[in-house]
Amino acid sequence: MRRLVEYAEAAPEVRAVFDEIKAARGIADVNNFWKALAVDPATLRRTWDSLRVVMAPGGALDPLVKEMLYLAASMAAGCTYCIASHTAAAQAKGMTEAQFGELLAVVGMAAETNRLAEALRVPVDPAFE
Amino acid sequence: MRRLVEYAEAAPEVRAVFDEIKAARGIADVNNFWKALAVDPATLRRTWDSLRVVMAPGGALDPLVKEMLYLAASMAAGCTYCIASHTAAAQAKGMTEAQFGELLAVVGMAAETNRLAEALRVPVDPAFE
Amino acid sequence: MRRLVEYAEAAPEVRAVFDEIKAARGIADVNNFWKALAVDPATLRRTWDSLRVVMAPGGALDPLVKEMLYLAASMAAGCTYCIASHTAAAQAKGMTEAQFGELLAVVGMAAETNRLAEALRVPVDPAFE
Amino acid sequence: MRRLVEYAEAAPEVRAVFDEIKAARGIADVNNFWKALAVDPATLRRTWDSLRVVMAPGGALDPLVKEMLYLAASMAAGCTYCIASHTAAAQAKGMTEAQFGELLAVVGMAAETNRLAEALRVPVDPAFE
Amino acid sequence: MRRLVEYAEAAPEVRAVFDEIKAARGIADVNNFWKALAVDPATLRRTWDSLRVVMAPGGALDPLVKEMLYLAASMAAGCTYCIASHTAAAQAKGMTEAQFGELLAVVGMAAETNRLAEALRVPVDPAFE
Amino acid sequence: MRRLVEYAEAAPEVRAVFDEIKAARGIADVNNFWKALAVDPATLRRTWDSLRVVMAPGGALDPLVKEMLYLAASMAAGCTYCIASHTAAAQAKGMTEAQFGELLAVVGMAAETNRLAEALRVPVDPAFE
Repeated sequence: MRRLVEYAEAAPEVRAVFDEIKAARGIADVNNFWKALAVDPATLRRTWDSLRVVMAPGGALDPLVKEMLYLAASMAAGCTYCIASHTAAAQAKGMTEAQFGELLAVVGMAAETNRLAEALRVPVDPAFE
Repeated sequence: MRRLVEYAEAAPEVRAVFDEIKAARGIADVNNFWKALAVDPATLRRTWDSLRVVMAPGGALDPLVKEMLYLAASMAAGCTYCIASHTAAAQAKGMTEAQFGELLAVVGMAAETNRLAEALRVPVDPAFE
Repeated sequence: MRRLVEYAEAAPEVRAVFDEIKAARGIADVNNFWKALAVDPATLRRTWDSLRVVMAPGGALDPLVKEMLYLAASMAAGCTYCIASHTAAAQAKGMTEAQFGELLAVVGMAAETNRLAEALRVPVDPAFE
Repeated sequence: MRRLVEYAEAAPEVRAVFDEIKAARGIADVNNFWKALAVDPATLRRTWDSLRVVMAPGGALDPLVKEMLYLAASMAAGCTYCIASHTAAAQAKGMTEAQFGELLAVVGMAAETNRLAEALRVPVDPAFE
Repeated sequence: MRRLVEYAEAAPEVRAVFDEIKAARGIADVNNFWKALAVDPATLRRTWDSLRVVMAPGGALDPLVKEMLYLAASMAAGCTYCIASHTAAAQAKGMTEAQFGELLAVVGMAAETNRLAEALRVPVDPAFE
Repeated sequence: MRRLVEYAEAAPEVRAVFDEIKAARGIADVNNFWKALAVDPATLRRTWDSLRVVMAPGGALDPLVKEMLYLAASMAAGCTYCIASHTAAAQAKGMTEAQFGELLAVVGMAAETNRLAEALRVPVDPAFE
């Protein structure tokens, strides 16, 4: 079931999602993530609908900031594909090398202090509740 | 070894770090994380020195953005203490409820697509390399 | 120490486990997982003995359900090899494309709500204790 | 921002979701997860809409199987709240003690072999591709 | 199903395991982990049998080193209960405060470099293959 | 931004770190991890300075033990690159096949009991506090 569904062979409901993604992003073909997700058209549709809403511009956070948050979460989760695609997406939205370097430093530092806080079973300060 | 080292009982090299943290943050006492880390003064010193540099203002990223990246990475790693402390820190730096809501949505969405990408073993698109 | 131990070069206690796996599964050769584990014959033996018991038919859960639970846990843990091998095993036991699609949706949804519950530090409802 | 939104104080769009959850499950009050998620009404709405679709009966998998897959994924991810709530949900759908015991055994075994496969960097067998 | 099975109420096959644990460790009562695991007697038996073999003295690694490896792995996985119990076990086997401090530093450092290596998708050096 | 910075093209502050690593380890070229980290010279410097201190000989733990703890933590975190590099480093410091086998067994066993303890939400024994 490791399969990439190409547009030419896709069912109509899959093509509809692919068309929306291509139009929204101004690209000629969708990324492998969407082609892989197409093995289950319902999950493809639901995921695209959610992602479109979550990443929509015009909210309380700048689109680049949202993309960097996505990238930081993906780095913390260790998802290789997601790190690759969201690094590219953040660059496309204007992330500079210097910003990437600082993001990297924060993610690394968070990983270290996350483990230390858990290793020492630090009780949450009353002030944080 | 689950122990919180209070200032009054702390060794001089621990007090020195505590003093720096209190001065840098303008607070009367350090958080539990630092009191717990003080069981190993060398790790306390190294961690504080690193954190101070990584989170220093004046870099390529806004301090609030860095704090939100830290929070997103901590949420993705599931560290309860870190989520509590960095939510508080981000609020102190001006994070609004609406910004927190969007950060939450991005972290949740990233968790879902991270798993889906790995579950389907999606190959990295050549364009991302 | 990244090495795959082939039958021809294997020590007698490794061959004994390989023979049991091949007989139990009706296959001509064991998968790479077992060949890799053979670098430590004691761990190979213990792992096979445990797995055989845990996955034995005739228990309270249907064999296909157990295989899908194994797959869901492996997806949640992000283990590429395990996802590949247990997807194949579940298909061999009859998992359909539609069932795989629903499993995928559940695992993705669980990943998202897992992170949200932790991000918000939701207290366990008294009714669940 | 660690806060549980009760029905009495909830905004109309939050109440609407709470009402749907209560009606769908035949319960008098929603669980803490939903009350916590209500700090961001948009995420509350999107999460409930997704969950309702993903867990809907009438699909290719039995509702109890889906609930156990959700539980297995939550156990693998180590989310305390989710383990508590989905253990209760699976019991409500008929999971027996014996079935829970086997689920537990599978999740534990998966955790061990997941780590072993990654520790040995086992290459995926060509047959699984 | 969150339940601790006490000796007085335990089934004979559970008591047998409890007796073995108490005899092997020279303690009056088993820890909560074993009482919790007793909800599934088969998993209790299999887990104790495995653990006894894996942690047996007389192997290639010193018992304290094995205990510290167990603790380091548990810290990296963020299991609160396991961190608590294996910290106590390591101390009982002679781990000093200084050794604990260095273990902590290694685990924290590993967490940081683990994330950095994955964030940068570093290709494995040919020399490591 | 997936890029390996070679010595010939490196900035002076990157070369300085590379030179220190090569001198400390007596090697002709640094590993890919350092070349990848060089995209952010500040993180490269800070990481090398920390690692050098954490892994320095002459402390309370034997250098091989520290290297094995690093490896165990990396295995538990599932970082492929780190597992590869620290397996090689541990072998270079004298880890035997038998020691590797026992380390592997401990890491696998820890993964299983970590998940079981969390799956059953085992309360921490008062004796461990």
